[in-house]
Amino acid sequence: MQGQNQQQAYDRGITIFSPDGRLYQVEYAREAVKRGSASVGIRTPDGVVLAAERRTRSPLMERDSVEKLHKIDDHVGIASAGHVADARQLIDVARRQSQVNQLRYGEPVGVETLTKHVTDHIQQYTQTGGARPFGVALLVGGVEHDGTPRLYETDPSGTPYEWKAVAIGGSREDIQRRLEEDYDDALSLGEGVDLALESLAEATEDGFPAEGIAVSTVPTETGSVESLSTDEIGERLEALDLLAEEDEGDAE
Amino acid sequence: MQGQNQQQAYDRGITIFSPDGRLYQVEYAREAVKRGSASVGIRTPDGVVLAAERRTRSPLMERDSVEKLHKIDDHVGIASAGHVADARQLIDVARRQSQVNQLRYGEPVGVETLTKHVTDHIQQYTQTGGARPFGVALLVGGVEHDGTPRLYETDPSGTPYEWKAVAIGGSREDIQRRLEEDYDDALSLGEGVDLALESLAEATEDGFPAEGIAVSTVPTETGSVESLSTDEIGERLEALDLLAEEDEGDAE
Amino acid sequence: MQGQNQQQAYDRGITIFSPDGRLYQVEYAREAVKRGSASVGIRTPDGVVLAAERRTRSPLMERDSVEKLHKIDDHVGIASAGHVADARQLIDVARRQSQVNQLRYGEPVGVETLTKHVTDHIQQYTQTGGARPFGVALLVGGVEHDGTPRLYETDPSGTPYEWKAVAIGGSREDIQRRLEEDYDDALSLGEGVDLALESLAEATEDGFPAEGIAVSTVPTETGSVESLSTDEIGERLEALDLLAEEDEGDAE
Amino acid sequence: MQGQNQQQAYDRGITIFSPDGRLYQVEYAREAVKRGSASVGIRTPDGVVLAAERRTRSPLMERDSVEKLHKIDDHVGIASAGHVADARQLIDVARRQSQVNQLRYGEPVGVETLTKHVTDHIQQYTQTGGARPFGVALLVGGVEHDGTPRLYETDPSGTPYEWKAVAIGGSREDIQRRLEEDYDDALSLGEGVDLALESLAEATEDGFPAEGIAVSTVPTETGSVESLSTDEIGERLEALDLLAEEDEGDAE
Amino acid sequence: MQGQNQQQAYDRGITIFSPDGRLYQVEYAREAVKRGSASVGIRTPDGVVLAAERRTRSPLMERDSVEKLHKIDDHVGIASAGHVADARQLIDVARRQSQVNQLRYGEPVGVETLTKHVTDHIQQYTQTGGARPFGVALLVGGVEHDGTPRLYETDPSGTPYEWKAVAIGGSREDIQRRLEEDYDDALSLGEGVDLALESLAEATEDGFPAEGIAVSTVPTETGSVESLSTDEIGERLEALDLLAEEDEGDAE
Amino acid sequence: MQGQNQQQAYDRGITIFSPDGRLYQVEYAREAVKRGSASVGIRTPDGVVLAAERRTRSPLMERDSVEKLHKIDDHVGIASAGHVADARQLIDVARRQSQVNQLRYGEPVGVETLTKHVTDHIQQYTQTGGARPFGVALLVGGVEHDGTPRLYETDPSGTPYEWKAVAIGGSREDIQRRLEEDYDDALSLGEGVDLALESLAEATEDGFPAEGIAVSTVPTETGSVESLSTDEIGERLEALDLLAEEDEGDAE
Amino acid sequence: MQGQNQQQAYDRGITIFSPDGRLYQVEYAREAVKRGSASVGIRTPDGVVLAAERRTRSPLMERDSVEKLHKIDDHVGIASAGHVADARQLIDVARRQSQVNQLRYGEPVGVETLTKHVTDHIQQYTQTGGARPFGVALLVGGVEHDGTPRLYETDPSGTPYEWKAVAIGGSREDIQRRLEEDYDDALSLGEGVDLALESLAEATEDGFPAEGIAVSTVPTETGSVESLSTDEIGERLEALDLLAEEDEGDAE
Repeated sequence: MQGQNQQQAYDRGITIFSPDGRLYQVEYAREAVKRGSASVGIRTPDGVVLAAERRTRSPLMERDSVEKLHKIDDHVGIASAGHVADARQLIDVARRQSQVNQLRYGEPVGVETLTKHVTDHIQQYTQTGGARPFGVALLVGGVEHDGTPRLYETDPSGTPYEWKAVAIGGSREDIQRRLEEDYDDALSLGEGVDLALESLAEATEDGFPAEGIAVSTVPTETGSVESLSTDEIGERLEALDLLAEEDEGDAE
Repeated sequence: MQGQNQQQAYDRGITIFSPDGRLYQVEYAREAVKRGSASVGIRTPDGVVLAAERRTRSPLMERDSVEKLHKIDDHVGIASAGHVADARQLIDVARRQSQVNQLRYGEPVGVETLTKHVTDHIQQYTQTGGARPFGVALLVGGVEHDGTPRLYETDPSGTPYEWKAVAIGGSREDIQRRLEEDYDDALSLGEGVDLALESLAEATEDGFPAEGIAVSTVPTETGSVESLSTDEIGERLEALDLLAEEDEGDAE
Repeated sequence: MQGQNQQQAYDRGITIFSPDGRLYQVEYAREAVKRGSASVGIRTPDGVVLAAERRTRSPLMERDSVEKLHKIDDHVGIASAGHVADARQLIDVARRQSQVNQLRYGEPVGVETLTKHVTDHIQQYTQTGGARPFGVALLVGGVEHDGTPRLYETDPSGTPYEWKAVAIGGSREDIQRRLEEDYDDALSLGEGVDLALESLAEATEDGFPAEGIAVSTVPTETGSVESLSTDEIGERLEALDLLAEEDEGDAE
Repeated sequence: MQGQNQQQAYDRGITIFSPDGRLYQVEYAREAVKRGSASVGIRTPDGVVLAAERRTRSPLMERDSVEKLHKIDDHVGIASAGHVADARQLIDVARRQSQVNQLRYGEPVGVETLTKHVTDHIQQYTQTGGARPFGVALLVGGVEHDGTPRLYETDPSGTPYEWKAVAIGGSREDIQRRLEEDYDDALSLGEGVDLALESLAEATEDGFPAEGIAVSTVPTETGSVESLSTDEIGERLEALDLLAEEDEGDAE
Repeated sequence: MQGQNQQQAYDRGITIFSPDGRLYQVEYAREAVKRGSASVGIRTPDGVVLAAERRTRSPLMERDSVEKLHKIDDHVGIASAGHVADARQLIDVARRQSQVNQLRYGEPVGVETLTKHVTDHIQQYTQTGGARPFGVALLVGGVEHDGTPRLYETDPSGTPYEWKAVAIGGSREDIQRRLEEDYDDALSLGEGVDLALESLAEATEDGFPAEGIAVSTVPTETGSVESLSTDEIGERLEALDLLAEEDEGDAE
Repeated sequence: MQGQNQQQAYDRGITIFSPDGRLYQVEYAREAVKRGSASVGIRTPDGVVLAAERRTRSPLMERDSVEKLHKIDDHVGIASAGHVADARQLIDVARRQSQVNQLRYGEPVGVETLTKHVTDHIQQYTQTGGARPFGVALLVGGVEHDGTPRLYETDPSGTPYEWKAVAIGGSREDIQRRLEEDYDDALSLGEGVDLALESLAEATEDGFPAEGIAVSTVPTETGSVESLSTDEIGERLEALDLLAEEDEGDAE
Repeated sequence: MQGQNQQQAYDRGITIFSPDGRLYQVEYAREAVKRGSASVGIRTPDGVVLAAERRTRSPLMERDSVEKLHKIDDHVGIASAGHVADARQLIDVARRQSQVNQLRYGEPVGVETLTKHVTDHIQQYTQTGGARPFGVALLVGGVEHDGTPRLYETDPSGTPYEWKAVAIGGSREDIQRRLEEDYDDALSLGEGVDLALESLAEATEDGFPAEGIAVSTVPTETGSVESLSTDEIGERLEALDLLAEEDEGDAE
């Protein structure tokens, strides 16, 4: 077992291992991810669903500026959780790589290729001195050239994981438990959206206002990122009995 | 819970996370913002209002040299709060980017594009070693090409937020509360100026001398930054019963 | 003997020796290897076997994305144990070197040559400041130009070792003991696969689901990396009475 | 309130904020300014006055070598207070920029432009690691192209302030109080010189020897820096009853 | 005398002297050498003998991969003791220099020249910051152009020593004592090999398996490095009554 | 007042200010100057005198190799006190600048220009990290183009001072007091030399051997540095009753 | 007076002064010099003598490889004491400069010029961060173009001293005392060699074996470095009654 004093000795610098082989700075960056509101990704045979809770500090803040879902390319979207400013840097890395791939090879970047490019970038910030790790996790969802839907997670260590359905950010455990209970390989894309909303609701008692949730899908049929309108989200939340009053702004 | 001793261990260097996933240097930079006098931004259908309190150390100091409102381009202004010398650097970053955009694309930079360029710059100072974060928050207000009024906030972490109405700097909470109570989506630009002055007055008991406040607007009609004269400000303050005697200089 | 206090003084920075001539950071990186699930390599006259346990955090995670076996070139594979993101960097180093060798000399890279290129890379991270060592061990298995099967291990110090049969990662000691008891110079490739599975089973009481194990071989006959299908693995596990139910995801 | 122990934790490195948002190194550099002898600047409709006390360690030291007033260009002078060697670096920065402006634009640099160039230089030494801030404050006085007299102060944080009349260095508070009491927008340039001498005298009980004070003016009429001779200064000091015997050298 | 507390103050960074003029990091690197198994070098009129003990962690490890003897050029070999991965770097330095010499001067590098090139490289790692010293000692043995046999030692400080017979690594003192007792200037090369084996046996009670020892010679007659086969070594060990059973792997 | 503990906190790094605005490393470098033997400079209407005590550790040391007076150019000499090896670097800086001036402008460098070039160099070592300040003070004496004799002092902060007569190094206070008592604006160059010797004698009870003092003059008539011979110095010392026996070497 | 605790605060980094103006790292490097065996230099009208004790760790070590005397050029030799690997670097610096001088100016480098080039190199390692000082002293002896014999010492601070006769290394004080007693300006070169041997014997009770001493001379007649053979040294030691039995190796 590792006492508190001993722990302090190893968690100050990113580039060193603790005696039990851990990288504390990376683990603390994972805590930064948990401090953010949750995002969920679900892969169905008909496409990928990305959904995220958007919290605001004040009713005067534009919910749309709380960027949790990002379109990277026509066929790939990313959901984030954690340190917002860090997320923006990784989104930029992903977008640039997507353009580079298009220019160099004349075709859209693969979802897996893109994910691994991003995780390589993240890993470098955990090994080389002079910088802290990225305090953010990403869900990369999209459709490959051959029409296969893919869903990846990146974590602050720079490891890529592929998932059928996964949650990142605050209340991750609760949301993931719900996904494990209700996920089915044969979900339709619409059922995937519903499951995403229902699982996100595990983290709250009151449901969400329609503006409090962002949802994007990448259907295999079109292979293009599509964002649901606030009305569409509101209707679905209502149908699921998860629609809440627009509140006065929530703690972020 | 985080004891005082443990906190000290994580707040000395910018590039590391605390065990609960926080970046203390960024949070302390937010305190530097609170040490500055307040600025307010209000977006109305007719344009954007930026207003700032200007305090002086002595009646012999020129109030105009207390720069809180900055014209970046014809159609964009910035209000700042916090460490003044840091603000000047970010203003320069914004102005240079505005010129680069004009040269490269032959058209004025978008308000959102400009804001995100500045926040990317801010974020880098929070992740890479050898520098401290910027101790300043900015309000970026302007009118997009298509005539849409936009109002953004940047904070020391490098996160951009879009607002209908927002305060930064000292007494932020009080001022924001007033904005939330009185903001209305249908405000005229003039009503917006009045609300800006009234909300700033939440931070003082005595009102302001006309020279103690700077106000700029970017009306959608003209798409150009316009500064109110001291006389205009004085008249409005008087009408709002907020006009104070020119004082002997105030604590900054 | 070395007291605990004194030890703490020497394990904070990678570039220094302790009074008894040890590099603690390298030793701690070895602990990071033990935190990963195990991999096994076995060399037989007919070729090399690489096998690895693949654990998942949730039944919704795709086992295939838990990368433990990597094809480097037609004739060389690598199994890893330890910090996953670090492993990916070394895999990239190996793949690039393999391509460089092909381009420069017009022939596939030798297994020994490749291993030593990777260990040189690892060593540099243990001597020069500003970076931590790699928290990963690799098994490099393949067939040389002349048809000789080779099996190498790399450790976090950057030392290459050649083996007849070897385990890395969690429960290494138990698995290696089993290998030492049952290894025979005259094993067929199939018997090698069985021994790999049986030795990995030393680390568990319950056997494995077919998806929980990855197996590759490099037969001398073809000189090409071949991956066993889940079905093939399932059949072998069943024959060895090591097949377990697909579980609900295991602790990683 | 901030205890002494806690303060010590944040004032050792320049690049970090304290928990209450302060930059201690910049504040300590302000103390270095206070350790220097005072300088005063006064703006009148007829031009700008710069005056400085010059102390010597010994009667054998040449007072003229105690540089407190510096001619930057024909139309701009600078008075300094604080760390002398640091002041010389900033004077060089100002002179170079003045020449660059003349070469690039074919006209003299503006007083405000020049001041802001210098404050940008100062700010960089407060944010980027590996250097300490400048321990000096400057008064930049001059006449703009259009004949407007301008007076700016720069402080160790890199903030520019415009003033009607201002003191920097030792006894700043006493001198500034006198300026606030006696300053008048309609002072003639000669009255400005007298007020400068009288306010500097607030910091001493005995008056000054004529050699102990340096005075320069930039009249709007000529737009050129003019230094008063020791005789002129002596006559004025005598008229103001502030003339002291040449002493044996004073503590510096 | 130097107390323990005071010692700790000087041994953390390589680039500083202790008050009594010692470089602790270099001394600790010498401890790393002692942690390795021993190597021996013996110079006879007929050539140079290099011999080394090779320990393995497991009977499944290939003894040949425990590299203790390295051929640098046709006429020079190196035996190492200490940190294996560090030794590999110095071997590379030696090999590259050997090739450079051949290319530049068209003749094989001299044994002394080669040794001093390597020690210069080692010294730099003891004076310049940002790296630790090499934790390895080398024995450089070979025949000069004129047929003279030479034997050098390099230590972690970067000092070259020439020897008639010398041991490095674990049990160095015992082995060296035996060499001093039995060395004779008129040894034949074969007698040199026997003395090497007998002296290495000072460090064990049980003798060695034939595979547990590596022996190379550089006879003056041929001027070429020659490795003894396992059979030859076994015969000699048996004749010296030092042959042990192949064990189950020995502690390394 | 500043307690001892608090002082320790601010004097370890050169680049930081103490809470009372001091740069301790610069102040300690001034102590290094006091540890050296004294040098004296005297300016007379007929030229400049530089004189320095030269102490040796042993009678076998060549006094001439104790360099305290340095010829920089035909018309400029420098006397030093403090850390000898540091002085040599600044002497090189001065000589190079002298040559650069001659090459660039075709005329000898001015004494003031040269001094300020050297002090700029010194200042940089007090502000930028990674180096300590120069532990040396210099007296720069010479004759300007127009025949004016000039005498400057540089200190470890990088501040230039002009003097009529000044002492640096050990016993500075005593020597300076003597200079202040006996200096006269109308001294002949010969009287200047005598005063230099007499004032240096304030630091000793026994006078000096002729070899223990070095004296150079730069007469306005010739504008060329001239060194007095040991015989000339001996005669003057004898006339002043300051000649001592050649001793057995003195503590340095 | 300086307490032990306070001392520790200033001796950890090379680039800082202690409150009393000392550079502890340089002083500790002088201790490293004292840990080495002694070297002696003597200048006579007929040339320069360099002599050094050579200690070995074992009778099997080649005394000649204990390099204490180095030929730099035809007319200059260097004796060293202290950290051997550091000495080798400075010897390289001297040799390279000697070649550069020959190539650039077509004539041999002057002894003084060469010495000062080396001391400049040493000084840089005492002022700039990231490296420790050289733990070695050198004696540079040779004959100038005009036939003048010269003898210089360099110390770890980078100060050059010229001597008639001087000792460096262990027992320096005893040896120097003997030199001071017996040195005579009119020594013949042979008498110089004898004095060198006699003074070195001050550090031992038992005399030396002939192989335990190295002696070189640079006679003014030839201007060329000449090494005495072991036989010549043996004869002189015997004549001086200082010849000891070859021992079993001595502590180094």
